[in-house]
Amino acid sequence: MSFFKSHIFCCTNRRPDSAERGSCAARGSEELRDYMKKRVRELRIEETRVNAAGCLDRCELGPCIVIYPEGVWYSVKTKEDVDEVLRDHVMGGKVVERLTI
Amino acid sequence: MSFFKSHIFCCTNRRPDSAERGSCAARGSEELRDYMKKRVRELRIEETRVNAAGCLDRCELGPCIVIYPEGVWYSVKTKEDVDEVLRDHVMGGKVVERLTI
Repeated sequence: MSFFKSHIFCCTNRRPDSAERGSCAARGSEELRDYMKKRVRELRIEETRVNAAGCLDRCELGPCIVIYPEGVWYSVKTKEDVDEVLRDHVMGGKVVERLTI
Repeated sequence: MSFFKSHIFCCTNRRPDSAERGSCAARGSEELRDYMKKRVRELRIEETRVNAAGCLDRCELGPCIVIYPEGVWYSVKTKEDVDEVLRDHVMGGKVVERLTI
């Protein structure tokens, strides 16, 4: 019944900078989400959707993403991390162990 | 590696009322998302997270939700629909066929 082969959710929750746990948006998640969407288009990765999501409750490890249906969680901090997740996980089917949380 | 037993994403994307496909928020998804979060707390449903999400690209069928890792999609239009999904699917493990999309 699934609709996408890879459904990627990027936490874009933002808290005040003073918040103890911090937040993914305060760590740059919105820019990384935009970059991921752009790369999925450019690479023409089919049946894959990148969505913003509310707080995924793993704030201290952010910016966080989760890829379903496999339910693999990553902390992606740079554009290079995004590239690696797209290339190895989404296109290659291999978990990027160094970025899992 | 999954973190939640049921991870529920509710599209809360809003488009102008004039948009041809409409949008989930214009059809009341934000209130339904809030209600779902409240009921998950009240019913103490464990290992379950309800998140807002950006456009899930099934606008004309909204308000849309998807539950992972099983990847089951629903159109939930009323609080009664939310109750049924929580009771039968999330707690009972049974797909609510009448609401699937």
